[in-house]
Amino acid sequence: MIVVGELINTSRRSIAEAVRSGDRERIQAVARAQAEAGAAFIDVNAGTFVEKETDYLLWLVETVQAVTRQPLCLDSPNPAALDKAMAVHQGVPMINSISLEPERYEAMLPLVLDRPCKVVALCMGQTAMPTTAAERMAAADELIGRLTAAGKPVGDIFVDPLIQPVSVDTQMGRAALEAIAGIKGNHPSVNTICGLSNISFGLPERKRINRSFLALAMHAGLDAAILDPTDPQLRASRLTTAMVLGEDPYCEAFIEAYEQGWLA
Amino acid sequence: MIVVGELINTSRRSIAEAVRSGDRERIQAVARAQAEAGAAFIDVNAGTFVEKETDYLLWLVETVQAVTRQPLCLDSPNPAALDKAMAVHQGVPMINSISLEPERYEAMLPLVLDRPCKVVALCMGQTAMPTTAAERMAAADELIGRLTAAGKPVGDIFVDPLIQPVSVDTQMGRAALEAIAGIKGNHPSVNTICGLSNISFGLPERKRINRSFLALAMHAGLDAAILDPTDPQLRASRLTTAMVLGEDPYCEAFIEAYEQGWLA
Repeated sequence: MIVVGELINTSRRSIAEAVRSGDRERIQAVARAQAEAGAAFIDVNAGTFVEKETDYLLWLVETVQAVTRQPLCLDSPNPAALDKAMAVHQGVPMINSISLEPERYEAMLPLVLDRPCKVVALCMGQTAMPTTAAERMAAADELIGRLTAAGKPVGDIFVDPLIQPVSVDTQMGRAALEAIAGIKGNHPSVNTICGLSNISFGLPERKRINRSFLALAMHAGLDAAILDPTDPQLRASRLTTAMVLGEDPYCEAFIEAYEQGWLA
Repeated sequence: MIVVGELINTSRRSIAEAVRSGDRERIQAVARAQAEAGAAFIDVNAGTFVEKETDYLLWLVETVQAVTRQPLCLDSPNPAALDKAMAVHQGVPMINSISLEPERYEAMLPLVLDRPCKVVALCMGQTAMPTTAAERMAAADELIGRLTAAGKPVGDIFVDPLIQPVSVDTQMGRAALEAIAGIKGNHPSVNTICGLSNISFGLPERKRINRSFLALAMHAGLDAAILDPTDPQLRASRLTTAMVLGEDPYCEAFIEAYEQGWLA
């Protein structure tokens, strides 16, 4: 499971304040905590500052990369902001995101081809959010076909089936799980990713719902997730699920986590 | 998810003492607690008392049925004990268990045909414990074929893929999950069941492992499980997993559990 740490997002008030006031130490502490908790990528998102998004995104890239070796997940709907952020990013970032929406696709395609990068490809239809597993799989087929034809290596593509909340429609969890399994069945070399917390929107006990769903998504074949790596119960659940799925040789990571007191 | 409450088993010291001393109230309290926590069947097992097993099993049946409406899961390797227990049981019990081992199969078959009952059918080979998913599925095919040919309705059969501990072989969890999905794929009307806690034998944090595995088994199609219904974290995990799998219309059971404080 490739973990993308989600905490540096200006939709969170403490992060917005740190960004606005230029508090490097606060941002760097959150970056370090996520890296130490096992994040392979650190997401940075300044999308709530529409006017200043580009400046703040560049500041975040520099600020986080000053203290962590992890590459970043550059998270913006704004191609111009992403272009500048990619130019200053050291190493191979993940770009979040491209989709089949025509305007977005055209603007994003050159960016994700020009420089080495991973790219999150959202299973959005051309005009609408997907509902069924079949709609998600069709969007994935189209995205993977187009991106690989354009020269993007399939292993650099992270398909996001777009999880919608079970509070909106109780079948949305199962639709996403079936989509993950279906996409991996049709395209074994592509990666799948999801923004985990969407599943629990509008319900109480969100962390409990998130960790239940992550376990099922791992079983369905999910490769990566955008989540809070510092949530101790989520981490314990991830380690335990990986073990019972046979992905922890000799149960070594599980037993080490137990000895470190991380499972209590 | 059909829950079979596992707590009345003389392999647990407190139960053995209550049985030995004829402490009806102690046994009845455990029966009631399991019924109130959602058990659909109450397992009774006096197997550690080899000589007195039959007497004690009959006493357990009478003692538990005096206070609960739930049918019992009569759990013994001893066909004679099961025969007597079935004769005194009120309602339709679950019989645990039959398997392809020739002597056991021959002795058990008339019992499970003579009276209405559910029957747990273990995916044991004729001579050995199964290792792979394919071995479990082959044993299931054979058991379902023979039992239905003998006249047992397929919906009364609860196939147990026999979970083996991940501490023995890390692939054992995945083998059981694949077997559950495969058996349900081949025989949609049969029920699947498992003794949950076997998965975690030999490891620390067993309850955590058990609840992770149960979530995955539910996703694979498990219909029933023999478990501790009074474990609050396991119960919360079951409710949450059922909800994200789309099996809780309007998230009603989840939200009620939240309001009752069961998810905290």
